[in-house]
Amino acid sequence: MENVDAGIAKGLTYANTNEDQALDRLFALLRIPSISTDPAYTSDCRTAAEWLRHELGEIGFAAKVHNTDGHPVVLATDHEADGPHVLFYGHYDVQPVDPLELWREPPFEPFIRTAENGELQIHGRGASDDKGQLMTFIEACRALKAETGKLPVKVTILLEGEEESGGKNLPPFLEKMQDTLKAADIALVCDTDMWDRNTPAITTSLRGLVAEDIEITAASRDLHSGMYGNAARNPNQLLAEIIASLRTPEGGVAIQGFYDGVKELPEEIAEIWKGLDFDDAEFLDAVGLSVPAGEKERSILEQTISRPTCEINGMWGGYIGEGFKTVIPAKAGAKISFRLVAGQDPDRIRAAFRAHVESRLPADCSVTFTPHGGSPAIAVPVDGAFLSRARQALKEEWGRDVALIGSGGSIPVAGDFKRILGLDSLLIGFSLDDDSIHSPNEKYNVTSFTRGIRSWIRILAAFGK
Amino acid sequence: MENVDAGIAKGLTYANTNEDQALDRLFALLRIPSISTDPAYTSDCRTAAEWLRHELGEIGFAAKVHNTDGHPVVLATDHEADGPHVLFYGHYDVQPVDPLELWREPPFEPFIRTAENGELQIHGRGASDDKGQLMTFIEACRALKAETGKLPVKVTILLEGEEESGGKNLPPFLEKMQDTLKAADIALVCDTDMWDRNTPAITTSLRGLVAEDIEITAASRDLHSGMYGNAARNPNQLLAEIIASLRTPEGGVAIQGFYDGVKELPEEIAEIWKGLDFDDAEFLDAVGLSVPAGEKERSILEQTISRPTCEINGMWGGYIGEGFKTVIPAKAGAKISFRLVAGQDPDRIRAAFRAHVESRLPADCSVTFTPHGGSPAIAVPVDGAFLSRARQALKEEWGRDVALIGSGGSIPVAGDFKRILGLDSLLIGFSLDDDSIHSPNEKYNVTSFTRGIRSWIRILAAFGK
Repeated sequence: MENVDAGIAKGLTYANTNEDQALDRLFALLRIPSISTDPAYTSDCRTAAEWLRHELGEIGFAAKVHNTDGHPVVLATDHEADGPHVLFYGHYDVQPVDPLELWREPPFEPFIRTAENGELQIHGRGASDDKGQLMTFIEACRALKAETGKLPVKVTILLEGEEESGGKNLPPFLEKMQDTLKAADIALVCDTDMWDRNTPAITTSLRGLVAEDIEITAASRDLHSGMYGNAARNPNQLLAEIIASLRTPEGGVAIQGFYDGVKELPEEIAEIWKGLDFDDAEFLDAVGLSVPAGEKERSILEQTISRPTCEINGMWGGYIGEGFKTVIPAKAGAKISFRLVAGQDPDRIRAAFRAHVESRLPADCSVTFTPHGGSPAIAVPVDGAFLSRARQALKEEWGRDVALIGSGGSIPVAGDFKRILGLDSLLIGFSLDDDSIHSPNEKYNVTSFTRGIRSWIRILAAFGK
Repeated sequence: MENVDAGIAKGLTYANTNEDQALDRLFALLRIPSISTDPAYTSDCRTAAEWLRHELGEIGFAAKVHNTDGHPVVLATDHEADGPHVLFYGHYDVQPVDPLELWREPPFEPFIRTAENGELQIHGRGASDDKGQLMTFIEACRALKAETGKLPVKVTILLEGEEESGGKNLPPFLEKMQDTLKAADIALVCDTDMWDRNTPAITTSLRGLVAEDIEITAASRDLHSGMYGNAARNPNQLLAEIIASLRTPEGGVAIQGFYDGVKELPEEIAEIWKGLDFDDAEFLDAVGLSVPAGEKERSILEQTISRPTCEINGMWGGYIGEGFKTVIPAKAGAKISFRLVAGQDPDRIRAAFRAHVESRLPADCSVTFTPHGGSPAIAVPVDGAFLSRARQALKEEWGRDVALIGSGGSIPVAGDFKRILGLDSLLIGFSLDDDSIHSPNEKYNVTSFTRGIRSWIRILAAFGK
């Protein structure tokens, strides 16, 4: 026991004194534009994977880049310890950067900025989602290895490159490697938020995701609105009518059967949420809004965590360049996604959506659907030994009780770990809700990074006790 | 009289024997990518203007390029004749070419193609709208000058470069030059269709146009749909709902007061339309459609000519690139235009549209409107001497009675000529409804070009009698 605590202390000291080098390494990773969704960046994704393999090898992991049908997976193992076995997950791919003109600095030239509130922030695409986060764990391992010679638990690190682009090649990879990966006792997923700047959090529920790309075709070619206006079906108009029909005037989703199986929030969770310091108006005000857009009778926490949603992530049709063009286009399209909660089956929701669209098409129009990933909502058990040790370790680092919260986001891999490997996941991350992930000017607080490293040192040591 | 007829005969012979050279000249003009709506092509617009000035000078016109606040205007005069004075109008600017991938050949590398029906077609952006058309008149002048030494009437040629981009600099130019231009007796506008491949047409009514660019802003930045989905207003959804609200389920326009002042089709016109060989199903079938989209109780001719419309010409919001991005964008926008008929005031329609949009915005969203041109519908008197002479001349060339038709398109300049110069317009053109103007693979039949030249020779001679 004393050895372990001494190991923690040494590891924490190492992390503190080597902060600049750790930041340098993170910056090197942030400079690689590993946008997984755009084929133009395919080789950059591989570069990021190779960079991580090299880093992990240097620390002492047996690390390898595994090819898939898409972007590669990095798998690294250090199983010298006698203790339990953790499978750490992160993703090295990042979101696209458009609209580029809204970035204050180029997204792949990371830098440290002092914010107006005095906080030091690491800026760059992926700083928070998920490169900064995954590096907290790698740096924690580096500190422990450097100071104690070995890790307190068996560690397998799995870093994928398709989290932001549907991730359809990870499940087959997990299946292929299941004999190895099933040896783990718990998965650690580092891709979530803290409760606030001072309060660590463990995420115990996640919404699922169904995403669809739809393209509607009307005429066989673009038409001149002077010649065909009124008489020819305008797919922009049709698509707008279909999108409008997806929502009820009360802010709900209007697809038939959409809420089937959705349960009301359990009393005990509702009680916990009441105790949280959460202000609906403040949440919206922070992004320039004041009118909640979802179901009128639901709180913001419900709308964003425990209720499903339908969002139009992209929409296009006709001429959208400079000036004006009086065209009736042949096609229009949209990218539409659904966040699901417990009780909703992704396949059933996808089918209901498609039926909803198809039933609204005139006889001379057609639609093509392209699916982008589908995952059910998941709930993490809140009573395990790993969870309670992680809670205690986080409390020791941050000096505060850990918030056990739900998240409105979707981390399909947690469902995959359960389904394919039989593994529960602990979702622990250090992002903040103003990190602008998926937006211009993404950042990660320097404290998220440095105290994230310290948190993992404590958690791994606690698991090894 | 004999001299004039001899002049016609010589002019027609010249046109026939110099067809290849005339096509070469048209091709040279078609090679200039004079897209007026895109600032990237500003210098190409000037090149087209200079090219025309040079051609007109060679024929013997006093020709000059006049600067405006936008693209230049070419003005050329030949006032040697004693007869009446005509003001010819055409536009040298062309529509944008996207989607470029749908063109069989590059849009600015014109070529002649034999179509499946055996027709020879001139292919290239602007072949029909309006470079091919305006060149029919210039080549007619060339033929008459070459063979008879002078034109049968006083001719002023005005060629503008902003017809496809709102044309807001032409009215001030007409006002500035009104003392000169008012000397004309009639305007000849060559930017319209024939009735069919064998039947010439004079267009006697045109729809007006009001165009608006709208941009809706919700949050102050792009948001992650996992974190904000449901609670944050999605401007894509809001825009779709607003667009959907512009139409009634019966295919009409739902803006309050939109149809105020719109009159039913006069009996006599309805009778003429009944006599025309027009098949509703065939019209739609030619572009792959079968279900009329406009007011259910109206015929296609009514929907496209005598009834106003609202069309979504472009629509954008969020991520529309490769793959998927679960973003809730900050902004979404659309390009929306209205075709107006007699009785509708452009300013009133624009105001009603803006009020319609504004009344549907939640308190935390805002909208900006950018106007793009506005012109009322116009009706051309059908009883003048110029019209009857042009009818007779066209009948002699084509061997058929001329169709007096309405057009669903908008040619704001005809309204400007009336308002600013007090001039009536004769709208005579040789395009066909399958010319794919404003679309990929625009073409102009070789017969439209060559017999268009011959038609103008006959019309000018008839005016000079």
